[in-house]
Amino acid sequence: MQTAVGLIGLGLMGKPMALNLLRAGFVVTVWNRTRTRADEVLRAGAQWAESPREVAAESDVVVTIVSDPPALEQVLWGERGVLAGLRPGSVLVDSSTVSPALARRAAEACASRGADFLDAPVTGGTWGAEKGELVFMVGGQAEVLQRVESVLAAMGRRWFLLGPHGAGQTVKLAMNAILALQVQALAEALALVAAAGIPAERLLEVLASSMARAPVLDIKGPLMLQRNFAPSFPLRLMHKDLSLALELAGQLGLPLPATAAARETYSAAKGLVRGGDVDYCAVVRFWENAAAAAERPPEPARGA
Amino acid sequence: MQTAVGLIGLGLMGKPMALNLLRAGFVVTVWNRTRTRADEVLRAGAQWAESPREVAAESDVVVTIVSDPPALEQVLWGERGVLAGLRPGSVLVDSSTVSPALARRAAEACASRGADFLDAPVTGGTWGAEKGELVFMVGGQAEVLQRVESVLAAMGRRWFLLGPHGAGQTVKLAMNAILALQVQALAEALALVAAAGIPAERLLEVLASSMARAPVLDIKGPLMLQRNFAPSFPLRLMHKDLSLALELAGQLGLPLPATAAARETYSAAKGLVRGGDVDYCAVVRFWENAAAAAERPPEPARGA
Amino acid sequence: MQTAVGLIGLGLMGKPMALNLLRAGFVVTVWNRTRTRADEVLRAGAQWAESPREVAAESDVVVTIVSDPPALEQVLWGERGVLAGLRPGSVLVDSSTVSPALARRAAEACASRGADFLDAPVTGGTWGAEKGELVFMVGGQAEVLQRVESVLAAMGRRWFLLGPHGAGQTVKLAMNAILALQVQALAEALALVAAAGIPAERLLEVLASSMARAPVLDIKGPLMLQRNFAPSFPLRLMHKDLSLALELAGQLGLPLPATAAARETYSAAKGLVRGGDVDYCAVVRFWENAAAAAERPPEPARGA
Amino acid sequence: MQTAVGLIGLGLMGKPMALNLLRAGFVVTVWNRTRTRADEVLRAGAQWAESPREVAAESDVVVTIVSDPPALEQVLWGERGVLAGLRPGSVLVDSSTVSPALARRAAEACASRGADFLDAPVTGGTWGAEKGELVFMVGGQAEVLQRVESVLAAMGRRWFLLGPHGAGQTVKLAMNAILALQVQALAEALALVAAAGIPAERLLEVLASSMARAPVLDIKGPLMLQRNFAPSFPLRLMHKDLSLALELAGQLGLPLPATAAARETYSAAKGLVRGGDVDYCAVVRFWENAAAAAERPPEPARGA
Repeated sequence: MQTAVGLIGLGLMGKPMALNLLRAGFVVTVWNRTRTRADEVLRAGAQWAESPREVAAESDVVVTIVSDPPALEQVLWGERGVLAGLRPGSVLVDSSTVSPALARRAAEACASRGADFLDAPVTGGTWGAEKGELVFMVGGQAEVLQRVESVLAAMGRRWFLLGPHGAGQTVKLAMNAILALQVQALAEALALVAAAGIPAERLLEVLASSMARAPVLDIKGPLMLQRNFAPSFPLRLMHKDLSLALELAGQLGLPLPATAAARETYSAAKGLVRGGDVDYCAVVRFWENAAAAAERPPEPARGA
Repeated sequence: MQTAVGLIGLGLMGKPMALNLLRAGFVVTVWNRTRTRADEVLRAGAQWAESPREVAAESDVVVTIVSDPPALEQVLWGERGVLAGLRPGSVLVDSSTVSPALARRAAEACASRGADFLDAPVTGGTWGAEKGELVFMVGGQAEVLQRVESVLAAMGRRWFLLGPHGAGQTVKLAMNAILALQVQALAEALALVAAAGIPAERLLEVLASSMARAPVLDIKGPLMLQRNFAPSFPLRLMHKDLSLALELAGQLGLPLPATAAARETYSAAKGLVRGGDVDYCAVVRFWENAAAAAERPPEPARGA
Repeated sequence: MQTAVGLIGLGLMGKPMALNLLRAGFVVTVWNRTRTRADEVLRAGAQWAESPREVAAESDVVVTIVSDPPALEQVLWGERGVLAGLRPGSVLVDSSTVSPALARRAAEACASRGADFLDAPVTGGTWGAEKGELVFMVGGQAEVLQRVESVLAAMGRRWFLLGPHGAGQTVKLAMNAILALQVQALAEALALVAAAGIPAERLLEVLASSMARAPVLDIKGPLMLQRNFAPSFPLRLMHKDLSLALELAGQLGLPLPATAAARETYSAAKGLVRGGDVDYCAVVRFWENAAAAAERPPEPARGA
Repeated sequence: MQTAVGLIGLGLMGKPMALNLLRAGFVVTVWNRTRTRADEVLRAGAQWAESPREVAAESDVVVTIVSDPPALEQVLWGERGVLAGLRPGSVLVDSSTVSPALARRAAEACASRGADFLDAPVTGGTWGAEKGELVFMVGGQAEVLQRVESVLAAMGRRWFLLGPHGAGQTVKLAMNAILALQVQALAEALALVAAAGIPAERLLEVLASSMARAPVLDIKGPLMLQRNFAPSFPLRLMHKDLSLALELAGQLGLPLPATAAARETYSAAKGLVRGGDVDYCAVVRFWENAAAAAERPPEPARGA
């Protein structure tokens, strides 16, 4: 019998994931806070459920992919939440990025209802979600992972079992800290080169021939120069992930000095865009004022 | 007639560069502060000169590659320095990493002696130097670059003319800031994952499948896990380059928050190794105490 | 009729505050998670209640002073929490340090029960609590503040009405960020002077004659030199407050670069003490390894 | 016989110092790069010399107080510099703030000419210089200090002998790092409070009643709120001193994370004012854009 899959959260990632599940032949039930975002998925054959609880009640495997910890708490523990409908023997796969502690709490809640849990956040961005090329970072038991591999295979190309519940989230936070710092490093380097009067494009040319070359920089570099900040991975989510990484490190008594410095520039960039949804490479805007200042005449001191 | 090339500085980079010049058929005159480091190069056919001045007196093109700004100042302006012997019409190519201001000062000194100057720091590490695969970041005039292309071609595979004198150094400092931050990012992520009880190897596996993958991380990651810090690019030189980048940014009125945070961890790592020459990926040692602390029992407060 | 005051939380701050309320003649009902901590206060005349709810049921004014946001959430919203017993017309004064958002949430919960709320975190440390010299940073309505002034006057010497609900917490977080950075600044300066071979005491002498002199440094400086870290204000709480300040700034899109850098050193110091309760001036331990390294011989590079 | 004192450098500090020397009855010979700045001092009875060398040739004690290390190098080692005129048996007192290494180099140069040297940078600002209330941080020998105490007493009220040559500069750099971080801490706290919608004045009121109170904050706080940045201690000099402190720490292998974070904001503030001379409390301008952003409507993402 065909596995029934529920998918909760139809954002930039969740929508293409749902479409790939449908393409792979799964029966798919969806729910999203804003129903209109479900239109394309419903036209492609998915079923609509009136609440996370009803999604869970219809599904062998429930995949959640929502934007932040409060959203996941609401979807799981809220009135008419997933936990109220979860079938014994089913598996909840959370692909949101949240704290390892929250993942462990969700795992316990599932266990008390006779269900299993995997934390399985993803990397690969919207492009990966659309092409079915996501990579899953999984925390939980190997046997449970095995039971959902066909579901993951519809959405991604690889999965790594990294340890017990929470390990997937831990590695995901570490990975996003790396990505955020790579983009930050490029932004600082571009600002330095530009402030010195050299066209920033030249840096990208050298970078492409260097040991520092990375896919994320190949993609974000030109967008940063063009000031094209259409969101692929939104700045506010990267900011949240950096905050989660620093919170985890703080609990562990571990200093992350560069991640912390970067988070502050992401905070500032978030302030500059004021809620307009932009990609995280918009962190480069942090240096705009410095650049603008370089073109202004000196100013006299006010006062005496 | 064959171009006579002088090469000053036979360190980790200079020695293989000299050997490649010889392989390409150039007449090569060398000088190094410590003469014993020249043995291999002399056996391969190079000539020894008693001072930088004599190297310059023998050469159409003089290449300098020394460890830091004071060393370059000594080699150029010191008694029996390059500038005292430089032939009119010759070209001085400085492949050291120094400040753009020092590059401009060297350019002026050359001009006043009827010679030309290029700042041409390199990227590619010892591996690139050995394979003749260096990339040169060049500041100066296109016409001058053209005159030395055959020399550069013996040592590297690409060169980028990036702007007027100093532009090569500016881009080099920006590139090294990116590399240092990538390694710092990996070190912070490895520390986070390890402190959370997950084998750090697992992070490298995920990294290899991600958008964050970069040649520098492919190489340094395993060395960092093995605690193999044999110097490819020495920590003290990366520390110096980060300091030069921050000094330049400070002059330009530009904040580089993550580079600054990273520089402090490189300072600390430099302190921990106390002058033993290690690779810059030894910055990972900054987190060792945190890791060690995680295995100790809690300590009581002293005092009242 | 005499005001009945409830006090929940008998830690380093709460216990002397309760004693001062008793000295001022109030009827005082107390609750603490660990009952044994109440002994001295009960001997001094306080009444014990079996839960926060019962404290609230007995009191005209309820004062809460617990260690962090989860503790406050438990005390207010938990089963048998304050909100379940709060009398209409009473006032809940929260002197814990929590996020402004949590203060606003508590204010709404009080309002829905016909009670009033003030966020009123304190400064002055255990010394101030014992001497009745605390300063209250208050968010809420002037009229409500007026109704509890006699209660505040028993515990402190000043109160500042800073704005609507949450304003007290905002200013408190800002104040603690200043204190944490002052101690961090002193720790960095002491480390620098000591690493350069100058007795750190000399810096304190100069400091005492300078514009930088501050009461917090007069007190913490000698303790830092003596490595006397008996907790006056625990490191883990300062770490939590820095985290709350950075979280608030992140929400507001505001960079706090030095506060963020300091928080990482507090994280590291927290890791080094591993849960042993120490004063926040133990952040100076972050530099211990650097100091120790300075006394070790250089180490050779491992590897090739 | 009356001690002949030379004073080189008639900036914000040097001018009032010269006037105090004259008031104390010393024969004073002065030199300054820009002669017009000497007018007031000459009217008060000082003698003009045509070069630092001539100042030295006329003086028993030479005091130098110039803006940065290159200026000191020029004044000492330049053509017609102090060292060319220094009398055997005389004392050179350098009250500039420079690196300890440069102080040691100057001491050696004096010794080779039969003269003595003290590094004696000052704290107390222009106010202290005018009132004769400076504090001198001295590196060198006690016996030499004794010989110049009457000269120091004309300009200041205290001096601390902190260790051998360079110790005065080391402590001065540490002191300025503390001052810079205190002002940075206040700036971050003011920005946080203001971004949260609370009048920043309220923070200053609470601060004045707290353990964090410091003379530097009492003075700078109101100026920061009024945006009165008339230079008492110029931002560019504080930026230089932070850079020197970080350079020294880097040499010692010591991380100064908060100082480093602060230096970057001072870099940015320096960029924003573009050479207009402002006080270092203008670092608060770093947060202006964040504040301005908070008043703008959200912006849509450009691009796809």
